Amino acid sequence: MSLFRGIARTSVKARRAGGIRLASSFAKFNAEDPLSLDSLLTDEEKAIRDTARAFCQERLLPRVLDAQRTEEFNHDLLPEMGKLGFLGPTIEGYGCAGVSSVAYGLIAREVERVDSGYRSTFSVQSSLVMGAIHDYGTEAQKESYLPRLAKGEIIGCFGLTEANHGSDPAGMETVAEEVDGGFKLSGAKTWISNAPVSDLFVVWARCKWDNKVRGFLVEKGAKGLDAPPIKHKLALRCSLTGSVFLDNVHVSHDALLPHGKGLSAPFGCLNSARYGISWGSMGALEDCIARTQAYALERHQFNRPLASFQLVQKKLVDAMSEVALGLQACVQVGRLKDAGAVAPEMISLVKRNNCGKALEHARRVLDILGGNACADEYHVGRHVANLQVVNTYEGTHDIHTLILGKAMTGHAAFAN
Amino acid sequence: MSLFRGIARTSVKARRAGGIRLASSFAKFNAEDPLSLDSLLTDEEKAIRDTARAFCQERLLPRVLDAQRTEEFNHDLLPEMGKLGFLGPTIEGYGCAGVSSVAYGLIAREVERVDSGYRSTFSVQSSLVMGAIHDYGTEAQKESYLPRLAKGEIIGCFGLTEANHGSDPAGMETVAEEVDGGFKLSGAKTWISNAPVSDLFVVWARCKWDNKVRGFLVEKGAKGLDAPPIKHKLALRCSLTGSVFLDNVHVSHDALLPHGKGLSAPFGCLNSARYGISWGSMGALEDCIARTQAYALERHQFNRPLASFQLVQKKLVDAMSEVALGLQACVQVGRLKDAGAVAPEMISLVKRNNCGKALEHARRVLDILGGNACADEYHVGRHVANLQVVNTYEGTHDIHTLILGKAMTGHAAFAN
Amino acid sequence: MSLFRGIARTSVKARRAGGIRLASSFAKFNAEDPLSLDSLLTDEEKAIRDTARAFCQERLLPRVLDAQRTEEFNHDLLPEMGKLGFLGPTIEGYGCAGVSSVAYGLIAREVERVDSGYRSTFSVQSSLVMGAIHDYGTEAQKESYLPRLAKGEIIGCFGLTEANHGSDPAGMETVAEEVDGGFKLSGAKTWISNAPVSDLFVVWARCKWDNKVRGFLVEKGAKGLDAPPIKHKLALRCSLTGSVFLDNVHVSHDALLPHGKGLSAPFGCLNSARYGISWGSMGALEDCIARTQAYALERHQFNRPLASFQLVQKKLVDAMSEVALGLQACVQVGRLKDAGAVAPEMISLVKRNNCGKALEHARRVLDILGGNACADEYHVGRHVANLQVVNTYEGTHDIHTLILGKAMTGHAAFAN
Amino acid sequence: MSLFRGIARTSVKARRAGGIRLASSFAKFNAEDPLSLDSLLTDEEKAIRDTARAFCQERLLPRVLDAQRTEEFNHDLLPEMGKLGFLGPTIEGYGCAGVSSVAYGLIAREVERVDSGYRSTFSVQSSLVMGAIHDYGTEAQKESYLPRLAKGEIIGCFGLTEANHGSDPAGMETVAEEVDGGFKLSGAKTWISNAPVSDLFVVWARCKWDNKVRGFLVEKGAKGLDAPPIKHKLALRCSLTGSVFLDNVHVSHDALLPHGKGLSAPFGCLNSARYGISWGSMGALEDCIARTQAYALERHQFNRPLASFQLVQKKLVDAMSEVALGLQACVQVGRLKDAGAVAPEMISLVKRNNCGKALEHARRVLDILGGNACADEYHVGRHVANLQVVNTYEGTHDIHTLILGKAMTGHAAFAN
Repeated sequence: MSLFRGIARTSVKARRAGGIRLASSFAKFNAEDPLSLDSLLTDEEKAIRDTARAFCQERLLPRVLDAQRTEEFNHDLLPEMGKLGFLGPTIEGYGCAGVSSVAYGLIAREVERVDSGYRSTFSVQSSLVMGAIHDYGTEAQKESYLPRLAKGEIIGCFGLTEANHGSDPAGMETVAEEVDGGFKLSGAKTWISNAPVSDLFVVWARCKWDNKVRGFLVEKGAKGLDAPPIKHKLALRCSLTGSVFLDNVHVSHDALLPHGKGLSAPFGCLNSARYGISWGSMGALEDCIARTQAYALERHQFNRPLASFQLVQKKLVDAMSEVALGLQACVQVGRLKDAGAVAPEMISLVKRNNCGKALEHARRVLDILGGNACADEYHVGRHVANLQVVNTYEGTHDIHTLILGKAMTGHAAFAN
Repeated sequence: MSLFRGIARTSVKARRAGGIRLASSFAKFNAEDPLSLDSLLTDEEKAIRDTARAFCQERLLPRVLDAQRTEEFNHDLLPEMGKLGFLGPTIEGYGCAGVSSVAYGLIAREVERVDSGYRSTFSVQSSLVMGAIHDYGTEAQKESYLPRLAKGEIIGCFGLTEANHGSDPAGMETVAEEVDGGFKLSGAKTWISNAPVSDLFVVWARCKWDNKVRGFLVEKGAKGLDAPPIKHKLALRCSLTGSVFLDNVHVSHDALLPHGKGLSAPFGCLNSARYGISWGSMGALEDCIARTQAYALERHQFNRPLASFQLVQKKLVDAMSEVALGLQACVQVGRLKDAGAVAPEMISLVKRNNCGKALEHARRVLDILGGNACADEYHVGRHVANLQVVNTYEGTHDIHTLILGKAMTGHAAFAN
Repeated sequence: MSLFRGIARTSVKARRAGGIRLASSFAKFNAEDPLSLDSLLTDEEKAIRDTARAFCQERLLPRVLDAQRTEEFNHDLLPEMGKLGFLGPTIEGYGCAGVSSVAYGLIAREVERVDSGYRSTFSVQSSLVMGAIHDYGTEAQKESYLPRLAKGEIIGCFGLTEANHGSDPAGMETVAEEVDGGFKLSGAKTWISNAPVSDLFVVWARCKWDNKVRGFLVEKGAKGLDAPPIKHKLALRCSLTGSVFLDNVHVSHDALLPHGKGLSAPFGCLNSARYGISWGSMGALEDCIARTQAYALERHQFNRPLASFQLVQKKLVDAMSEVALGLQACVQVGRLKDAGAVAPEMISLVKRNNCGKALEHARRVLDILGGNACADEYHVGRHVANLQVVNTYEGTHDIHTLILGKAMTGHAAFAN
Repeated sequence: MSLFRGIARTSVKARRAGGIRLASSFAKFNAEDPLSLDSLLTDEEKAIRDTARAFCQERLLPRVLDAQRTEEFNHDLLPEMGKLGFLGPTIEGYGCAGVSSVAYGLIAREVERVDSGYRSTFSVQSSLVMGAIHDYGTEAQKESYLPRLAKGEIIGCFGLTEANHGSDPAGMETVAEEVDGGFKLSGAKTWISNAPVSDLFVVWARCKWDNKVRGFLVEKGAKGLDAPPIKHKLALRCSLTGSVFLDNVHVSHDALLPHGKGLSAPFGCLNSARYGISWGSMGALEDCIARTQAYALERHQFNRPLASFQLVQKKLVDAMSEVALGLQACVQVGRLKDAGAVAPEMISLVKRNNCGKALEHARRVLDILGGNACADEYHVGRHVANLQVVNTYEGTHDIHTLILGKAMTGHAAFAN
């Protein structure tokens, strides 16, 4: 029995184009969108992307060199993003835009096209802080905080990582205990983006009464709370990073995020952030490609443009190819996310792959700049330094390897 | 003005799932379909894939070791495929199944999951021979040949490559001249799959009257035609390869494929074949992963399964990740192909990426087998040898680099 | 106090050349000996190398294709090598040449320049069988076996690896127990080079009386001994490989190698073999370079020799560079070996590095051959298949990583 | 005839150790000197290395973080080095130490173990400026400048690179013309290390009278000479870099370096500098290894030290292995240099290999630091940024590929 004869009758109708094209009938190639990401986006998503690109190129790019040199935080950043509806954009209601996960990813990509630090600030506010409150908070917490966070009126941070427990938050040492009128929090967090300028701290602590991890909302000014900046960073200098010290900080009962219990709660937020990073890292790499490609076209050696050399073309092509693949994967994961069909391992896969590839290929194309690679005006060196951190935070490349390895084999090898 | 406020109203409706999921609501991960390729396939396509998989595992796999050892051609292969509608499957009419390009790719993947040589035989018959006749032939040629090729009653080959012009067919030396009653063909082709057992030879020749390349249909037995096999191959031993010698071969006027002129004609066929190879190579890598993963689970060293070692997990995860990305790209290119929106450079991108990655990662997972890597019963070493050729034929990795490099920069660097 | 002022007076004398050369006074570069290995060899060593090269090119190369195709063992190989003094060449007395370890390495390199399988046969006879008898045997055993092994009159094999204990011989299941008149050996070994044609089997077994591993000399024809060949190998087809089954094989008391107890005994032999492999693998890569370089010079595409393309030059240069470094390391380890100053980890380092690099770069230059890569007449594909095994046997790349990792960190991670 | 029987009689005597060691008699492995570099050094060289290490660790390391943060030049650096005899150390006489090229390399390695920028300052002064005067200057020039440069009383720079001629100095646009009383120099140089603080500028210019490139000594304060610093560098921030503008700068006749004509003159100096860089880059990588190894031993995750994880051990072992090989090659090239037997391509080989490997592996081990990678107190991130420049300057990796490719194939592919 031939399966195909039966199938053939309907399959013709299934074709969009209403007929087989000649193999030799081809569209024109667009090296900036090699596998036609555009064909997978809604008109709304394309409009959001264009708005985001215009904002980032016009408002962020001109400030980035100065921020890089001085490590000074740009206090206009979040309010300006908020005005455009970029913050917590997938949340419905509470003053948020309620757009698709793909639209959220497109914003992250445009922000990181300028700088991974700006994207970090954006991710923390959107996925980690607003996400935590939206997913695990009470209605009162949502109404109190989400609209102000969405406008960028207040800045939030996400206190999970501790000095001795980067890849293994199960070892968390920060504790909460119930006391008269609320809870008392003690511990120390480190490498917390936004912390030194935060108005609102989402702090994860192990609760003494049942040994479960839960989140608490702590406001700036709480007694015993301190968030000193970490300066002289080698990367992500456009975003502010700090430690968070909690010395018997007292919060009321309504500071508790009641709907998240156990490490799955912060991991839920991390998964959304990681998803955004998988888009953002592609944006950074795309900027590296565009800048080195332009340089290679303009710069001549041996009486020919660098762009005409095989060794230069290989670097550019390898990088472009990975961007094309990485973005296809991002769209797919975004669609699955909105359909409720995403698995955390899928996000590990795209976070790991896209950050790893972005770092690797940004480094390779950087070499095209020759001696100018170390001049910050050329931007690519800054992306390279940033991407090393982006490849590391929210799960190092190795940790995601082992998460996926466990999913493939059933064997946990974290402690091996 | 906030773009998003306006957008938000409609965007909600645009979501499939009818509401934002909690970040912590997740689907289960399937390591054999890491980014849910299934979600992008029609029911018909899934049915075709299942049929193809069953056929390949049940009918091809049991014969592959013997074919590998003896280099003997399996004469049942094409008729059996033909019976199932696998040959020239995207062609409508002429006894062909008329399915989507994605369905065609899914078949190629299943065949190459067993052996790249079998897939080569399939590709040549379907994309190169049937494709050339369908795209450039007369109605009479189509009616004469396509149904028999579709059934596998006759076997075809595609004579383009010459000994001194592998990557650069523009230098073609085979010539056609018009003579009484038709044409006279002279020249030599090499590395021609299927040639020694072919009934029908699609021969590309430079026409003396206008210096353009055109295709000719030459039937077995023509005087002056010889197609000796190339034996002792190190790879693709399950497919037959030969030279084609044309010593003043006389064909009638209706042997000319009239609708293709210039190198764009054979390149059109090559693009379809390359598209299929981009799927097939993923199938081969998937088989390597599945076999080494099973081995790693079963085999113990130091009292633990190999699968629990970090260095082993990394090999498996890297490979799985590339399969997931490569297949996403294949689907996208297939959809664009059917929509008439594919550019040849897109096919260069997926052919180059998928073959290169398949080869690289097949080699890496091969190491998991340890000493057993060199036993042919484990199959992976055979895939590794095959994939080296697959990465080379129909455009080497470097040639596709330079095709894409030209597309990116506007500078041709082929001769550099 | 300036250290240098004091030193300067003597340092001048320490210079070989008796005066600073101008920076611009240079020697001519020899791409076949990029870092002047020659300058580190004695005249004797150079003579031995030249003899070995002549023998291998004249006597082995002409037979290699046929051996590859048929998997037939060349029974003249060891006698011919023996006549030249190549077997067990570092041993003094017993009819052995007593040359330096560097000379031994130079022979291995020349043999493997032709084929890794021939070098395997040579290594097993020299380092594993003759080495074991020389290091752990009685004077009577040495006198009885070494001269005949040195002449190639008898062939030996080394039975250590078992099916379930490749990387971890500590799990050895073959046992010896003392019985009337000698010992009884039972167990099974696999992937044993030379076994099917061996006259003498060095069998390692766990001794029941004290649970220590010891070596036993078993002669062909012993009752209960069987050594069937493993056929259809994907690599090392010029050497013969087999299993060794011992079914209550009875040997007399003087079959025991008395001076080696515990796994350190076979490991001592393995270290000598690994040292030779580190040389041999470089020879194989050098042949791949020479052949692809010649091909690239001769073959034209786009009207230029392949050798003039940047992407081709990069492949050749990367490979040449690794050969130059790898051979320098080989000489150093050889000198330290003869001075009694070698550590096993040094051998792990050069075995791992040289085999890994040889495999990686042989694969890369193979691509230069384009479609001809899969024709066995071009030899490089055979080297590539062989080197995958060479990189795996006598300690996989990963196992040597972990041996060195333990040496660096103090932490054993084998079972992780 | 057996060659070996004849040889054996003498070869025994040739052995240092006076007898074959048992294969199982081994030395202890030292992971900090994996292939016993020490065994190849004279006592004097070891003493110089120890002095250099002590100086660098005690005097340079404590200042490096501050220099990195502020980009401020350390004016004590050269005088302190001068006091110890480190400057121009291979030169005999003129107040220089007159030590071997290996000793010079050992100093470069120790300086770069702290920072590549400090090593750059050292290299420019020693190889480029003092080397140029020594090799191409008059006796009067040597006596006037070398002793002061050796003491670090004056600082020199080497003006070769121009903005549009990085990899291809043959296109040099700076010109010299003969005028009354001397020469007039006009042009612009960029990326010139030490320039902003230089007292003496070695300027290379194309001489109008015969179109040949020659060197000129220009002193600070010359009218028309300006050397503004390039600030905000992303790397080598401990060394000062500047442009050099020459606007009709008038120098007397005795400013000309008479004994160097054509590009071979500056290339001679560059070769000495590149040789030193090949040592220095290994020092930087060694520091990265030592720091990440210590971190991995101390830092625990999942209740185990990072150093016990396979993925971490692999990073450390790969890096250590490349250091071991790279240093062996450095010694060999140094010995050949002093013997007048070095070819420039050998220096290209070790410069390219060692810088490329140092960069690659410094990046890999950096990941071991996790989030702390971006804290400058951990030093490794600084090395990584530096090594990108070190891999680029004095001939990019690609340029050295093509230099070696030309040497291998006879085909220049620079302009391809």
